[in-house]
Amino acid sequence: MSAPEATILVGRKPTTNYVIATVMQFNAGSKRVILKARGTAIARAVATAVMVRDRFMPGLVEVKEVKLLSDRIAGQGGKERYVAAIEIVLEKKQ
Amino acid sequence: MSAPEATILVGRKPTTNYVIATVMQFNAGSKRVILKARGTAIARAVATAVMVRDRFMPGLVEVKEVKLLSDRIAGQGGKERYVAAIEIVLEKKQ
Repeated sequence: MSAPEATILVGRKPTTNYVIATVMQFNAGSKRVILKARGTAIARAVATAVMVRDRFMPGLVEVKEVKLLSDRIAGQGGKERYVAAIEIVLEKKQ
Repeated sequence: MSAPEATILVGRKPTTNYVIATVMQFNAGSKRVILKARGTAIARAVATAVMVRDRFMPGLVEVKEVKLLSDRIAGQGGKERYVAAIEIVLEKKQ
């Protein structure tokens, strides 16, 4: 049995990989899939969400919430720096 | 007199340019600034929004809405293709 909620970290792989992972999670019974990304991968997370919603599961899935965050990460020389991040909550429609 | 609402198209310039443009709009009297971006510029629009909210105007501005869209554009050879897009609504707090 799959958990009702799944989180997918979107990184440097092709967008299609994340689209497939998201669709598989919904097909395995998840009610929500949360896409998380930082920095340049943010664009890939948005592309994933839009492709799942409009092309792969039209009418079945909606974007429930989009959070914009700033993550603190350790940069070179132990200095901290901030990077923009996104969390997109996709939810199955009832 | 500045319009109460301004739209900024985020493209290929450095993020700082868009941060400055956004802050200037608010300082000129705009109540809302809408950041629009497509494709890879999406990450830059998110970075702009987060920097304005958390670093340049902390406590003064909030992210009111984030829309994820798919824009149809004319590709090579007149074929249409879809590209992910974002609209971020920043609003001055009362």
